[in-house]
Amino acid sequence: MNQKQKEIYMKKAIRIAHKGINNTGLNPIVGAVLVKNNKVIGQGYHEKITGNHAEVNAILNAESKGEKISGATLFVTLEPCCHKSKKTPPCVDYIIQKGIKKVIFLEYDVNPKVNGKGVKILEKNKLKVEQIFIKNSLDEINRGFKKSITDKIPFISLKLCVSFDGKIFSNKLKNNLIGDFIQKKHSNELRKNYDSILVGVNTIIKDNPELTYRGKINKYNIQPIPIVLDSKLRTPKNSKILLNPEIKPIFIVKTSVSKKKEEDFKKLGVKIIKLPNLSPNAILKVLNKLELQRLLIEGGARVFSSFLESNLWDEIILYYSNIFIGNEGVNMTSKFKKIIKLKEENLNRFKKVGNNYMIILKQ
Amino acid sequence: MNQKQKEIYMKKAIRIAHKGINNTGLNPIVGAVLVKNNKVIGQGYHEKITGNHAEVNAILNAESKGEKISGATLFVTLEPCCHKSKKTPPCVDYIIQKGIKKVIFLEYDVNPKVNGKGVKILEKNKLKVEQIFIKNSLDEINRGFKKSITDKIPFISLKLCVSFDGKIFSNKLKNNLIGDFIQKKHSNELRKNYDSILVGVNTIIKDNPELTYRGKINKYNIQPIPIVLDSKLRTPKNSKILLNPEIKPIFIVKTSVSKKKEEDFKKLGVKIIKLPNLSPNAILKVLNKLELQRLLIEGGARVFSSFLESNLWDEIILYYSNIFIGNEGVNMTSKFKKIIKLKEENLNRFKKVGNNYMIILKQ
Repeated sequence: MNQKQKEIYMKKAIRIAHKGINNTGLNPIVGAVLVKNNKVIGQGYHEKITGNHAEVNAILNAESKGEKISGATLFVTLEPCCHKSKKTPPCVDYIIQKGIKKVIFLEYDVNPKVNGKGVKILEKNKLKVEQIFIKNSLDEINRGFKKSITDKIPFISLKLCVSFDGKIFSNKLKNNLIGDFIQKKHSNELRKNYDSILVGVNTIIKDNPELTYRGKINKYNIQPIPIVLDSKLRTPKNSKILLNPEIKPIFIVKTSVSKKKEEDFKKLGVKIIKLPNLSPNAILKVLNKLELQRLLIEGGARVFSSFLESNLWDEIILYYSNIFIGNEGVNMTSKFKKIIKLKEENLNRFKKVGNNYMIILKQ
Repeated sequence: MNQKQKEIYMKKAIRIAHKGINNTGLNPIVGAVLVKNNKVIGQGYHEKITGNHAEVNAILNAESKGEKISGATLFVTLEPCCHKSKKTPPCVDYIIQKGIKKVIFLEYDVNPKVNGKGVKILEKNKLKVEQIFIKNSLDEINRGFKKSITDKIPFISLKLCVSFDGKIFSNKLKNNLIGDFIQKKHSNELRKNYDSILVGVNTIIKDNPELTYRGKINKYNIQPIPIVLDSKLRTPKNSKILLNPEIKPIFIVKTSVSKKKEEDFKKLGVKIIKLPNLSPNAILKVLNKLELQRLLIEGGARVFSSFLESNLWDEIILYYSNIFIGNEGVNMTSKFKKIIKLKEENLNRFKKVGNNYMIILKQ
């Protein structure tokens, strides 16, 4: 099989992997394709947190069609697992047992229980193992899985749309239209890559956002979960996020909120988490426990500031719109205490989006 | 002569034209090259406001070397003039009289006394006339000449270096280092294309800038003139712009400033202009009378705001640095009253400069 053919099969595995997005808890999303005699005989992906790994699903898929697995080549987007302390058995054992002769994978598993060990076991059992490198969109998704492993908190993107002079809100602007239609659409597209979206209660009060991804959602995808920082539970009962049956928001409130108020909100179908203080660190640990791995923080100024200052963020996505608001507008940051200077390599990406400029800054 | 050869000669004329920069008052900068038998026999440029036009200097240059002009082709960056109400006689007459057979020019003169009429007179006298189009750096300089003709005020660029969150100053930053070294150098390079630089007195007090172009200045170039808006003449006597003998700043002050204070400052070699109010419109009319045609406005916030609001500006040059300052910093705008929404085509140019992003917005 030549390099080009290998890339075609791996790209297929990458495509299939995406079906698992937002359904795998803290697990990575993974896709697998089984190839024999230059023909795809089976394919699968990691469908949900308690379900089979992608490799197993690909093998089962092939067998269900009466295909013989022995001698096949397995393309898989992540190094096959080899650890036993979990619900599913190690994939390497299954791969060996089924007589697969070669495994081509995209990325090593950062989980220290696997990291390179999976590959070694396969090689010891005389399988050929090869890593190939393709620029791909899985990276972006699996940053969440990796950060959950290494830091035990989600991957965090801070997103803001500001005027050219750095303002996020003005009473003078109708519907707070700082960005234009194209920017709003682009910004909404981002949501599909996150399993959770965090906003402060002021954003709910001022903007009344839907906080849903409004692009095409296939049957495998799930809406990101809205996380509302609302220390005193001031969210209006007629807010859009409380009226949409499709989403189940999580409210993070102070422990001082009354039992009665809490019960009132629970009746509306929301989950309430009480914390003594709403620090970024405390919030992120909670989200990790809730098995959320990719968090998009959408403002407003207080939330943006506290996460920016915490240094726990991974990237900032800033849209500068084609408007000058002036100093009556609301600042990007609020009660911001320390000056933050980014390193050169952090100025990462730039794009014109409609009448706006988007800049992505990396931590 | 083929197209490529024509372009080579015209590029030479463009290069020569630049020698006149900042020396021609409200006149354009113009270069000319005389070519005969595929050889340059003379060259010249518009050296200073009262001096010969470029065409005349090219002819005189050729004659001084004993060259015969008759039958030559003239390359000139601007349509030759034909109007008589000025210090120098019309160039078209001189060109015809000298037996030049062909004129190749770059741009029509926007001055309604010439605009197309110069070309017509040449054609009537059986000269071949041809316009050629080359992307060139003269455009940028001659925007000042054009705006002086059309609007009777200078071409205006507003320049600011801000933090990512749109702040121009913070007491917490040492030496107000919002941009980095590369940004400062890039920003200083801009100055060479302006004949005047305007700042508010607060910028002088806070930053104590030199306001000079610190690149290579050849013998033809002149430093831009610092214009300081200082209604009450609060500029400290030990400010760098008062200590540099190379520059002669102009202070625009309120008529209420005392005669004594005015005389004190005049002794330091500055020009003082008194106005009842320091509105952008009044200031720009004064600069036009002083024969300044290209104004770079470098801040601070009050000056930036008043010119932004006036809508008399032509372009905004914004550098976003790699720093977040927070809401204790000074806003880009001050007492800004109306929201300004730019049109799509106004988002003009983008460039990474060191650790900063530069965005140019057109009016």
